[in-house]
Amino acid sequence: MKIASFNDYRVGVVEGDTIYDMTGELPAFLAEMPRQRINWLISHWSDLRQTFGEHRQKGKALPLASARLLPANPAPQHVFAAPANYQKHIGELGERVVTPGGRSAREQGFFLKAPGSLVGAGGQLQLPKGSARRFDHESELAVVISKEARNVPRSEAMDYVFGYACLIDATMRIEKGVAEEERSMRKSFETFTPLGPWIVTADEVEFPQKLGNKLWVNGELRQSANTGEMIVGIEELIELVSSVLTLQAGDVIATGTPEGVGPFVPGDEVRIEIEGVGAMSLSVSETDVRAPRPY
Amino acid sequence: MKIASFNDYRVGVVEGDTIYDMTGELPAFLAEMPRQRINWLISHWSDLRQTFGEHRQKGKALPLASARLLPANPAPQHVFAAPANYQKHIGELGERVVTPGGRSAREQGFFLKAPGSLVGAGGQLQLPKGSARRFDHESELAVVISKEARNVPRSEAMDYVFGYACLIDATMRIEKGVAEEERSMRKSFETFTPLGPWIVTADEVEFPQKLGNKLWVNGELRQSANTGEMIVGIEELIELVSSVLTLQAGDVIATGTPEGVGPFVPGDEVRIEIEGVGAMSLSVSETDVRAPRPY
Repeated sequence: MKIASFNDYRVGVVEGDTIYDMTGELPAFLAEMPRQRINWLISHWSDLRQTFGEHRQKGKALPLASARLLPANPAPQHVFAAPANYQKHIGELGERVVTPGGRSAREQGFFLKAPGSLVGAGGQLQLPKGSARRFDHESELAVVISKEARNVPRSEAMDYVFGYACLIDATMRIEKGVAEEERSMRKSFETFTPLGPWIVTADEVEFPQKLGNKLWVNGELRQSANTGEMIVGIEELIELVSSVLTLQAGDVIATGTPEGVGPFVPGDEVRIEIEGVGAMSLSVSETDVRAPRPY
Repeated sequence: MKIASFNDYRVGVVEGDTIYDMTGELPAFLAEMPRQRINWLISHWSDLRQTFGEHRQKGKALPLASARLLPANPAPQHVFAAPANYQKHIGELGERVVTPGGRSAREQGFFLKAPGSLVGAGGQLQLPKGSARRFDHESELAVVISKEARNVPRSEAMDYVFGYACLIDATMRIEKGVAEEERSMRKSFETFTPLGPWIVTADEVEFPQKLGNKLWVNGELRQSANTGEMIVGIEELIELVSSVLTLQAGDVIATGTPEGVGPFVPGDEVRIEIEGVGAMSLSVSETDVRAPRPY
């Protein structure tokens, strides 16, 4: 099933070109905290699954194209992210080596992105107005957590997966010796974490470590890999993060990016596609105003 | 006014040795998402201020010592933090220099801590069971944000402050060349962000840049400074963070730590006191079980 957040934090089920507005099936009090609807849905999925699946006709059917898609979860408590996490194909022999620096998430652990940096498929990637810095794209499979998870061994990790989404991890690059801001800030500018276009529930993704992961800029293929090339796989990432703290229902883990990371500029169109999950294109623009502290 | 979260996410007003349980003055639906109560209270403070202030007798009075204090806000959307952010007194002449590395939050920006690392004054600082790593304390003033804030110039920043709390930023130290995990992970172990004992509302803190900031381990004074020695002050920190993304009501900014950062081990007692805000002591223990991936 494809679960989407749209318009004013309404919740829908997507089927083909149609989105069924299921907001009315959620408790009315959530209208007081609409950004929490997806977290609530995930926490109560065992009660909601049948209604959302078999009885989606209860919801008003709208053309998908008419819905403005928001972040697949607008307000996770955490967005964890693995550093570069794909092996690189070298030459024809198919040797594999670890990408930049030789250290993976196994050694580096995770970093955090601000939930406030999330944007949906209906949004834009907005760079700080007037910036001369370089901004890069990273194409990633996102895992959405289904329930509280603490000290989960990798053998049980998949029990904690609610579903999957596409995630672009946008980054302001450092300039060595000139500008070396904290990583978690450089990756947390508003709109720097497109997440969507929806969450595909885990039951529909039989082999999450066998999915194509591709990203294009203006139609040119920049990144192309398979989730099978992850160094630290989904199960180990859940083990890693839950060894540090308790994950909450709705939390997002960005599983890292393959080679081909490159720059984008205002006017570009960035498209991500994760096989079996979905695809989304976002245009790149600048923020409307120059911030009091510009970048 | 002192606003506290306690027991099962109840909300109280603290006065002397008494806590008035004001949970019943909040909408009943919040019982469905009790961790969100403080965010809700902050968002609706203009409607609630009078009840919480003048009519606190509506709430049941309990001995403060009987309440288990939780994180002053259990579920902020973000916990932003400034790197080491105090000038250091040198010698008798009183020259001041920037602390380690010579770079402040002005150059480094902010990093993120996981909200899941928060703990209250009624909890413990729990180190990963069986770890041989070094863990350090950092004594900080926390600023709690009152409303959505985007591109706030420093001249208007204080309009966005709901209140203040004590914050200990606990950190697992890197071992150069051996273990160099991401900073945001090393600071996000569960219980590594004590926040409390309550939030003191901004109207009661006339000069937030003139507060003593002290931390003791087992009664020995380890850190002692004044918030007036911050390199990047509260107003500039709000300008900085809101130049990157939108802050939400209830968000926390840890304003950085002065010199005197040092280690603590299980069995220690760590006490923080911020003048005019409050004080809290947490004992240091280990987690009950060794994680599947130990540290």
